[in-house]
Amino acid sequence: MAAAANSNSDNLTLDKVREALIRQEDTIVFRLIQRANFPVNSPTYDEKFASFSGSLLQFVVKETEALQSKVGRYENPEEQPFSPENLPPSLVPPQANPPVLHPAAASININEKIWDFYFNQLLPLFAVPGDDGNYASTASSDLDCLQAISRRIHYGYYVAEVKFKDAPQDYEPAIRAQDREGLMKLLTFEAVEEMVKKRVEKKAAVFGQDVCLVDNGNGKCKVDPSVVSRLYGEWIMPLTKLVQVEYLLRRLD
Amino acid sequence: MAAAANSNSDNLTLDKVREALIRQEDTIVFRLIQRANFPVNSPTYDEKFASFSGSLLQFVVKETEALQSKVGRYENPEEQPFSPENLPPSLVPPQANPPVLHPAAASININEKIWDFYFNQLLPLFAVPGDDGNYASTASSDLDCLQAISRRIHYGYYVAEVKFKDAPQDYEPAIRAQDREGLMKLLTFEAVEEMVKKRVEKKAAVFGQDVCLVDNGNGKCKVDPSVVSRLYGEWIMPLTKLVQVEYLLRRLD
Repeated sequence: MAAAANSNSDNLTLDKVREALIRQEDTIVFRLIQRANFPVNSPTYDEKFASFSGSLLQFVVKETEALQSKVGRYENPEEQPFSPENLPPSLVPPQANPPVLHPAAASININEKIWDFYFNQLLPLFAVPGDDGNYASTASSDLDCLQAISRRIHYGYYVAEVKFKDAPQDYEPAIRAQDREGLMKLLTFEAVEEMVKKRVEKKAAVFGQDVCLVDNGNGKCKVDPSVVSRLYGEWIMPLTKLVQVEYLLRRLD
Repeated sequence: MAAAANSNSDNLTLDKVREALIRQEDTIVFRLIQRANFPVNSPTYDEKFASFSGSLLQFVVKETEALQSKVGRYENPEEQPFSPENLPPSLVPPQANPPVLHPAAASININEKIWDFYFNQLLPLFAVPGDDGNYASTASSDLDCLQAISRRIHYGYYVAEVKFKDAPQDYEPAIRAQDREGLMKLLTFEAVEEMVKKRVEKKAAVFGQDVCLVDNGNGKCKVDPSVVSRLYGEWIMPLTKLVQVEYLLRRLD
């Protein structure tokens, strides 16, 4: 995961960015498997369940992000909050490294879309119905998943920056024309996307198996590998490209 | 992980307790692998690094536990805080289930020992030296590891309770004599412990591998499997038995 906090523009290469993205796949798969330890646990999301303003989940997200903001989490551009309103400032000394990204990155936060697909489409695909009472752990686990997915998607800033730096002449005409569709085409490599989907499917199969000393051969996975493939194909990769397009559109400002 | 929040004494069986312990092994291995994404990052632990009272880590632990307490984490007996002083009360409605454990469980918290071995002995065995600036993520990741290990060890309450319920006559003489050594002997099964050490070693090898579409055969693991075996053999299993002994010593009160 080793984020780009200490990167500088000299050591930002496509290989390093890819390596970071691949490591983040493991994190995402691990966290989905952890969330799958709990059933849906709907009181976590019920605004009338307890005496918070909002749901238990909203309380955990807001309070955790406020705490993490104080310890500098959001000084890393790829870390974008889900509750950006009134975040307290960081109390840690700022990093001395020169910024790698165009300042436009700071204005691109698509967490509303991530929140929406996670709760409305993804979660019902891998959490079984039911209620085991573990609402606090469920909320932490949801936030872990959301943050890992969000970091992966907003890492698109680095993908876009390194691609632009490697071949500005390829991107400048579409940027000057503010041509979203043209940029999206330049950033789409279907063969690579298919490979990523296959790799994350395999990771879900490997990391989600029951490991026993004697192979029990049940082949059951804690999260259906095809759901992880779909997560990447339908949401993570398209939204990463959306972040890249938004970044590139502002790259010459 | 599905903790015992909704258990009641009728469905607490040795098989269910073992199943929970086995699932918790996955959580512990996943979290160690996540922590190994970062180098040691010593400013996280430096009391002079930032303007907190204490280190960044201590701040994250204290504030996270306070937040988790409000959402009911510590209503589960196996969840024991590392900063138990002045925790705010839970704001969620209490569970209606009858308690499974003897009330003595609430007074047994060995997190000081867990904190001590984690930072002074375990962490240097699996985090590489260095500083990448990701102190906020490092602190969260340490707390994730500490909480998973602590839950596993304090799950000893359930192990002890189910063993006692299954055969009170085996334990009562040693309990009445307050014979710690005798209880420790009754709770020690070396063959089982060897099997657990082998299984977690295998889990570290499986979950810590680099998963590629084409086998790269590098066989490198993100956390040395022998370190995970040692974690169980030297700390987790002995401390779980300590929790069991402490619980049984008070079981007839």
